[in-house]
Order: sequence, then structure tokens, then C-alpha cells
Amino acid sequence: MEMERLKCTISYDGSGFAGFQVQPGQRTVQGILEKALEKIHKAEAIRIQASGRTDTGVHAVGQVIHFDTPLTIPEQNWKRAINALLPDDVWISHVEKVQDSFHARYSVKQKEYHYIVLNREDPDVFRQNYALHFPKRVNIEAIQAACRYLEGTHDFTTFSSAKSTVKGSKVRTLYHASCRKKENDIEFIFRGSGFLYNMVRIMVSALLDVGTGKRNPEDIPALLAAEERGKLGKTISPSGLYLWEVRYHE
Amino acid sequence: MEMERLKCTISYDGSGFAGFQVQPGQRTVQGILEKALEKIHKAEAIRIQASGRTDTGVHAVGQVIHFDTPLTIPEQNWKRAINALLPDDVWISHVEKVQDSFHARYSVKQKEYHYIVLNREDPDVFRQNYALHFPKRVNIEAIQAACRYLEGTHDFTTFSSAKSTVKGSKVRTLYHASCRKKENDIEFIFRGSGFLYNMVRIMVSALLDVGTGKRNPEDIPALLAAEERGKLGKTISPSGLYLWEVRYHE
Repeated sequence: MEMERLKCTISYDGSGFAGFQVQPGQRTVQGILEKALEKIHKAEAIRIQASGRTDTGVHAVGQVIHFDTPLTIPEQNWKRAINALLPDDVWISHVEKVQDSFHARYSVKQKEYHYIVLNREDPDVFRQNYALHFPKRVNIEAIQAACRYLEGTHDFTTFSSAKSTVKGSKVRTLYHASCRKKENDIEFIFRGSGFLYNMVRIMVSALLDVGTGKRNPEDIPALLAAEERGKLGKTISPSGLYLWEVRYHE
Repeated sequence: MEMERLKCTISYDGSGFAGFQVQPGQRTVQGILEKALEKIHKAEAIRIQASGRTDTGVHAVGQVIHFDTPLTIPEQNWKRAINALLPDDVWISHVEKVQDSFHARYSVKQKEYHYIVLNREDPDVFRQNYALHFPKRVNIEAIQAACRYLEGTHDFTTFSSAKSTVKGSKVRTLYHASCRKKENDIEFIFRGSGFLYNMVRIMVSALLDVGTGKRNPEDIPALLAAEERGKLGKTISPSGLYLWEVRYHE
């Protein structure tokens, strides 16, 4: 049977999901997507591949998945067909046919994550699931200086979860790490070749420590050099975390 | 016993509430607030009075309530004391002592509501509960012209719900009705002496009809003159509706 590979860009509000990956008895993004695709394929099970998992409560603006289909639906009709079967908190923003050599996970070139912090005294009831409320005053220039130490190719073991079970190299390249203040928000942007488990949340936690003066920007190189998992234990809230974009090799 | 009257300004995310008013077996804003106050008052039941109810799913940025207390807590400590007992989707932004003559409902001078519409083709998964998704192209100038017909003192029967059980005059004064486009959002603002049941949602529904050309701005005076309940049946989603501010007589 002739199969076609489709690449989909999807956004989801992580608040109502027990993460991306299928788990029995849990509402997951993968579960919802595969159920919708199964309906389109007349009860035939369709397995999707994503660029990577996201944890419970983590959002996506531009997650990417692929799947193979025997159906010959025109490319421009797929988006509407899938969205019609999805709940309000998942949305396919783009569908395109790709070569069989494309793989949502293995062809990833760069990933970009954003982390949003609401930096004011009062919380915002409308953003409890969408930003980390951090009322302490922070020094943005100090955080920006620390970001420059994080950029580049390093062993990020110190910035990975002690719970991580990933084997192999912990060396990653961070092409971009920055932080900017927009009214009461602090927006962190990270773009890299790949990210270890909980790496963004642990980096933001350490950077906020720099912002409040608990650490100095100059401490970052020594922290990286320590290569000690769990040294920066605190993994902050998933609410502020967004998988923003996934870029692929041409 | 000496009692003090406290006025509180509160915000809440209406998504998780079956409206404001206490209902047995339902999670309501009033229920949550009275439970918190009961804890502070050592299990003594405290009844609150609000400026008015809000329906299921309707949000508040500046709802106002009052209650009487025998406790002699300094004014500046009340805010923290109550907020410490509230869930993440309700927040007291201001507490002040007021005269016994103040009443959250009967002393209202003006109320302001905002209604937010996301006016683009794709929905936004992060705002499903916070804005009405309306993908059709609209003519903002026509809506603004219709708003000017709504302003003033009129019998708003046509713009009230057929389910309304309120007796008495349906005459209200709308001091301000406007609409502006901000990127992909259309923001409606209404400020008036008072609002009938579902009045804002019915007005927005009619104004969107004007925006798409289904009605003309010049139809508004005849609609008002008809004084016919249910004539504009469609009550649109509560998701975009915010009780923004309540103003009181000095």
C-alpha cells in the first residue's frame, strides 16, 4: 500500500493534559491526536511520532509530529479534517506532505523554548497556568550576563534532572539564551541543538537566582564544569514553559 | 458587638466556577469566598454582598463585595489573610474599611464590562476560555457607528434575555459603548448605570452582526424601540466577558 508521510505543526494548552506521551487512563496530547486520526482512518490505529515529549502542564506553540497514512486526502484538506475532531485545547496550525526520510524526532536541527515569568507583586488569576508568578525584584542585566555564559557547547549535566534516565552524552549546544522584560513579564528564550530532561526549567530557576542576587553570573561556568546532576535541584513550574518552535534539516 | 464593614475588590477566572452565586454542590465564587472568611472568623458564617452576580464562565477583573466583621484586624493585613486561604483562580486585589452606609450592590453608580473577541481564522488554544473566537471579517467602523446608537438612556428590553425574571423598569443609561481593534483582538467596552440579564452578551452578538453586514448600524434605534424580549435571541459565549470595574457614589 502506498503511504504518505504528513508533518503537522500543533499547539496545545498543556493545562489539561498529563503530558504529551500516551499513558493508560490519562488524558494526553498523543492520545487525543491518535484518537482523532483513528477516526479519520476508519478505526485503523495510527501511531504518531513527535519531536519529543512535553511534561504535564507544559504548553506548545509549535510542536511537530509526523505520521504515515494510506489515505489520499489533498494536503489542504487535512488541517480541517483533523481539527474538526480535536478538542478546544489542541490545534493543528499546519499540515504538509514530506519525504519518507523526514522524521519528527530524528531530523530535528534546533528547538526553541520560551519561559514566561510574571514579575509583579500580585498574581494574575487569568495566567495561573500560563506564566510563573515570581514577585521578587530581579536584576535583568545580571540574568542577561548569565545567559551569555550558558550559550555555546557545554556538558549540561548540572542543568539536567537527577531523575533523568537518558544515557549517552550530555553535551548540547545552546545557540541562543536570552531574557527580556516586557511590562511585568520576563520572557526567557532558549534555542539549542537539543535539551536534557527539565533543562529549561532548571536553567530558568538558576537564572532567577542570579536575578535576585543569590548567585552571580560568573558562577555559571563553574556550575557547568561541575557536571553534577541534581546540584541545581529546583525544577520550577511547568506553567511558564512553551515549546515554541522546532526547526529541521532541509 | 462592634462591627466593621470591609469593601474588597476581587478578580477571578470564571472558567472553573458555576458562576458567582452560591449553589448547593457547585463550585461558586461566593462559596469559595465565604468559606475563606468563615475560616478567618473561627467557623462563624460570614455572608458577603456583591455588586451583582456573574454567570458561569464570566470573568471579573474588578468585582466588588462587602461584608461585616467583628474582628479587629488592621486594614492592611486583611488582603494577605484572605488571599492566603483562596485558590489560585480568585484574588483579592484591594481591601478597605468603609462606612456602614456603603453597600456593594445598592451603592453602585456605574459598572464597566469588557468583551474580548479573537478575530482571526485560527483559534488560540491558550485563550479558549478568555476570548470569543470569531473568524469572520468584520467592519469595525460599522460596529462603532452602532455603538453610538446604543449609548444614552433607553429601554433595553430588546437586549435582555427572554429568561430574565427581573421586574420593573428596563430603562438603563449606557454612558459609553465602544469597540477597538488591537492586533487580532476586538475589544468592546460598555459602561452603564446598570445592565439587564445577558445584556452585554446580547449587545455584542448584535454588534458582530453589524460587523459582518447582517444588520446595519441604523437598525439599532428600531431594535431598541421594539422593546421585545428575545428578539435578539443569541446569547454568545461567556468566555470573552469580563466585569471590569464597579464605580460607587462617593
